[in-house]
Amino acid sequence: MVNAFMQEAIRQATENVRAGRGGPFGAVVVKDGRIIATGANTVTPTNDPTAHAEINAIREACRALGTFQLTGCQIYTSCEPCPMCLGAIYWARPDRVFYGATASDAAASGFDDSFIYEELKLPHTGRRIPFENMMREAGLEPFREWDQTNDRVRY
Amino acid sequence: MVNAFMQEAIRQATENVRAGRGGPFGAVVVKDGRIIATGANTVTPTNDPTAHAEINAIREACRALGTFQLTGCQIYTSCEPCPMCLGAIYWARPDRVFYGATASDAAASGFDDSFIYEELKLPHTGRRIPFENMMREAGLEPFREWDQTNDRVRY
Repeated sequence: MVNAFMQEAIRQATENVRAGRGGPFGAVVVKDGRIIATGANTVTPTNDPTAHAEINAIREACRALGTFQLTGCQIYTSCEPCPMCLGAIYWARPDRVFYGATASDAAASGFDDSFIYEELKLPHTGRRIPFENMMREAGLEPFREWDQTNDRVRY
Repeated sequence: MVNAFMQEAIRQATENVRAGRGGPFGAVVVKDGRIIATGANTVTPTNDPTAHAEINAIREACRALGTFQLTGCQIYTSCEPCPMCLGAIYWARPDRVFYGATASDAAASGFDDSFIYEELKLPHTGRRIPFENMMREAGLEPFREWDQTNDRVRY
């Protein structure tokens, strides 16, 4: 079944490649039945490894709505979100996500999504990029400061 | 043992709370023994749910270096990265990551990091935010376009 929002996300992805702007990924954010933001991958032209389609679309939608939450929104993305974008989606809290191609489709074209999902399952010491804990006690200080702040804005 | 880079990441986090700018998180990116970028959480003042300390520091470091890769760099972050930031780290590819407080310390102050790590392990249909596949065949089109492009810049 054809869905117009997904079609637009895919169109954004294809156009992005044709224009030489970045990777083959596009996304749209929908609220109340209309598109409020679009995004395509701009990692290479902007030298920003976080500029994936979903991240760009989420940032644009939040700018448009003047909020850091996407309550009542749906995200349509041309490809299953990578772990970074999945995390961003959880922080933005839209109602639902629709995706076209899968993480393994992305892997077939040389993108690391599946690899990163595998790494996430490993203990810190077994990962390709080592993660090492240090100074945990000192690291608690910012949280103590936060817990004592009365006018903190939760997100 | 005290590490000056971790101390600076923690200082960024504490100062961020004191200044009322955002959440209790800070990060620095180090290359060749010196700090090339710093970042603190600015989700609420910028209405950007992706503006975590690590994301801000990675974007700033890439801007400073004029590249989308952090080869030869180390990231020091006041708290264990959330899944979004962990994904961003994998895309930026620094050599190593050091963190102070843990994801469970963050959870104790009301941050969703641990919750998102748990959600990642669930099948798409069992997640709090439903992820639904649609139009996979059409979703392959951007990848076909990408695979046929000769001057594509891999990242």
